[in-house]
Amino acid sequence: MYNFVFQNTTKIYFGENQLCRLGEEVKQYGTRVLLTYGGGSIKKIGHYDKVMEELNKAGLTVFELSGIEPNPRHTTVNKGAEICKKENIDVLLAVGGGSTIDCTKVISAAAFYDGDGWDLVTRKAPITKALPVVTILTLSATGSEMNATAVISNLDTNEKLGIHHPLFLPKVSFLDPTNTYSVSPYQTACGAVDIMSHVFDVFYFTAGKKMDLVDRFMENVLKTVIKYAPLALKEPENYEARANLMWASSWALNRFLETGVSQVASCHAMEHELSAFYDITHGLGLAILTPRWMKYILDESTAPQFKKFGVNVFGIDESLSDMEGAKRAIEVLSDFFFKTLGLQSTLTAIGIDDKNFKLMAKKACKGDVLKGYKHLTPQDVENIFRMCL
Amino acid sequence: MYNFVFQNTTKIYFGENQLCRLGEEVKQYGTRVLLTYGGGSIKKIGHYDKVMEELNKAGLTVFELSGIEPNPRHTTVNKGAEICKKENIDVLLAVGGGSTIDCTKVISAAAFYDGDGWDLVTRKAPITKALPVVTILTLSATGSEMNATAVISNLDTNEKLGIHHPLFLPKVSFLDPTNTYSVSPYQTACGAVDIMSHVFDVFYFTAGKKMDLVDRFMENVLKTVIKYAPLALKEPENYEARANLMWASSWALNRFLETGVSQVASCHAMEHELSAFYDITHGLGLAILTPRWMKYILDESTAPQFKKFGVNVFGIDESLSDMEGAKRAIEVLSDFFFKTLGLQSTLTAIGIDDKNFKLMAKKACKGDVLKGYKHLTPQDVENIFRMCL
Repeated sequence: MYNFVFQNTTKIYFGENQLCRLGEEVKQYGTRVLLTYGGGSIKKIGHYDKVMEELNKAGLTVFELSGIEPNPRHTTVNKGAEICKKENIDVLLAVGGGSTIDCTKVISAAAFYDGDGWDLVTRKAPITKALPVVTILTLSATGSEMNATAVISNLDTNEKLGIHHPLFLPKVSFLDPTNTYSVSPYQTACGAVDIMSHVFDVFYFTAGKKMDLVDRFMENVLKTVIKYAPLALKEPENYEARANLMWASSWALNRFLETGVSQVASCHAMEHELSAFYDITHGLGLAILTPRWMKYILDESTAPQFKKFGVNVFGIDESLSDMEGAKRAIEVLSDFFFKTLGLQSTLTAIGIDDKNFKLMAKKACKGDVLKGYKHLTPQDVENIFRMCL
Repeated sequence: MYNFVFQNTTKIYFGENQLCRLGEEVKQYGTRVLLTYGGGSIKKIGHYDKVMEELNKAGLTVFELSGIEPNPRHTTVNKGAEICKKENIDVLLAVGGGSTIDCTKVISAAAFYDGDGWDLVTRKAPITKALPVVTILTLSATGSEMNATAVISNLDTNEKLGIHHPLFLPKVSFLDPTNTYSVSPYQTACGAVDIMSHVFDVFYFTAGKKMDLVDRFMENVLKTVIKYAPLALKEPENYEARANLMWASSWALNRFLETGVSQVASCHAMEHELSAFYDITHGLGLAILTPRWMKYILDESTAPQFKKFGVNVFGIDESLSDMEGAKRAIEVLSDFFFKTLGLQSTLTAIGIDDKNFKLMAKKACKGDVLKGYKHLTPQDVENIFRMCL
């Protein structure tokens, strides 16, 4: 069990009809607001009008950056930073899922940097200051609404990199489950995989000793997703299902689950290569990779933890041997991803061949090994990619 | 499921040897520190010297308020407030358990009030400003280290009242499990009951609909206490046990468990009368009251939740009927309190008779009914007290 420092200051408004508080919350940070969003679905489903109404009521001056991509680009960060500088923006308001929020976080720092925003992501330049960020979440997945992490893609270099900075933590986030009613089954499924993946890739499957209290909560988050994601697919307007998925997404990656745990994230690192090269949905990449990664690293040392996962989360037969239990756990997880959630199960099925595997594997390992539950060499990563064909 | 606002800004340093950060953390709030503590056990076990060394290293000027009582008095609040005013204190540092921290919170506000600090507790005077509070926890029980609540006793009026104010939230809390190695078996047991009681009295047993994610986490906290409290009794220096109890105490009452839940707390209100009249340990009062309260309100409407508690937390037989299961759950909880934890099981055993029951019951109900999972009239409360004889 490791020592840790825990603090998460984000203020959460959870539930329906909380948007009446938006104006006062944004206003405390200034009057010139940059509203950021994605492809415009927020206009189609009416979020945009509601948000604008509240901002106007509060007498705020609103500028806009739309078109933030699902894997947000560094070029979009630069576009946003330019608006911030030119229009003397005081505060950023991101309306969307993890991509929009992530992009907005990096804009908040790039607003104070005179070069290419990508330098901040690669840590070539330090982050020294950032504008406050407020968010309105419309997709339950990344946890970005309550953490200090952002992931940005650079299509010129085929890179997708994560960056963590305390200044990125949103000041306020509005979590209204009804805002996710219109999320498609595919995106709901990908979001569910992302939440689960945060738990078991980043925290649950680790070699180190964890705190029992936290370990159990990880299993809770997983069980919550397993219970409610299928229900949200069946009944997109089921409030209970959407609420549980939303609150689970925040708690899967708001640092509470990291308390006392040594953090590792090999599936996320491998998936970032897939998204960087092929611009696929993060959750889909994770779904395809995770069961293969588990199979690849399955041995006597990892089997007990995989079996425990199967028993405590999926309720598989406890009397199985560690190895049989682990295999069964991987099976039921695959079934959940590919049958229950209906996601595609191979890279081949989504048009990805082995052409770039060697290069992607090398990049994932960053010239070293990819650290994780089991450390992986570039050859290991390439083998795992091949298992996904 | 209710809408909610969640924010908890307390910064937690968890683990051994984190005290090296104390100086820098306190210093950011000023240089004149009021160190508050209880009966002096922190001197006997060496905490005091370590704390003073860090404060001196940081060049801080330290004043002291010692002798804070287990059920802290309003007179002690006034004493502390006087020191703050006279010595121009910038920041308060509480070293102790919930009582010391609670008292320090109210001192932080009383420092800006010219009358009797009790006026702030009774809400006769509003709290408008407060000094920052930093804490070093030495007892896992109340959760005061990570919440904005304080409970103060007035022996003149036989009142023990809770007060909640956002300004009471500690800025920083140091949670070192080894600081609880010297906590006696009795205090460890009482602390464990307090943690459990926060969960099921305040949140778990409610008539309203809860979020599944949060409901499961409540069961986690309970299971964690049930697993580790007996271990801490057997092995007082078991780090894992002390760490799990400590982190559980913070999460049992830091508002996360309240998210989406309607809050009720009838056992706490009844116990406050016991402590107010007889100055007993809060956790002991809760242990004696809780199983009786459960028995008293057991009917067809409450039985399913009590049974669920027994099944999910204590692993009792799921095939029992709701009523049988509920009865069994109350039995195993009683056994846990009075056999496993070894606490005394009746008020008679600790020298309390029925003399004040009528008055206490009336006060608990505050001239109305005592709200809770089942609302209780003064007669109900008196009946429950009598069951404890």
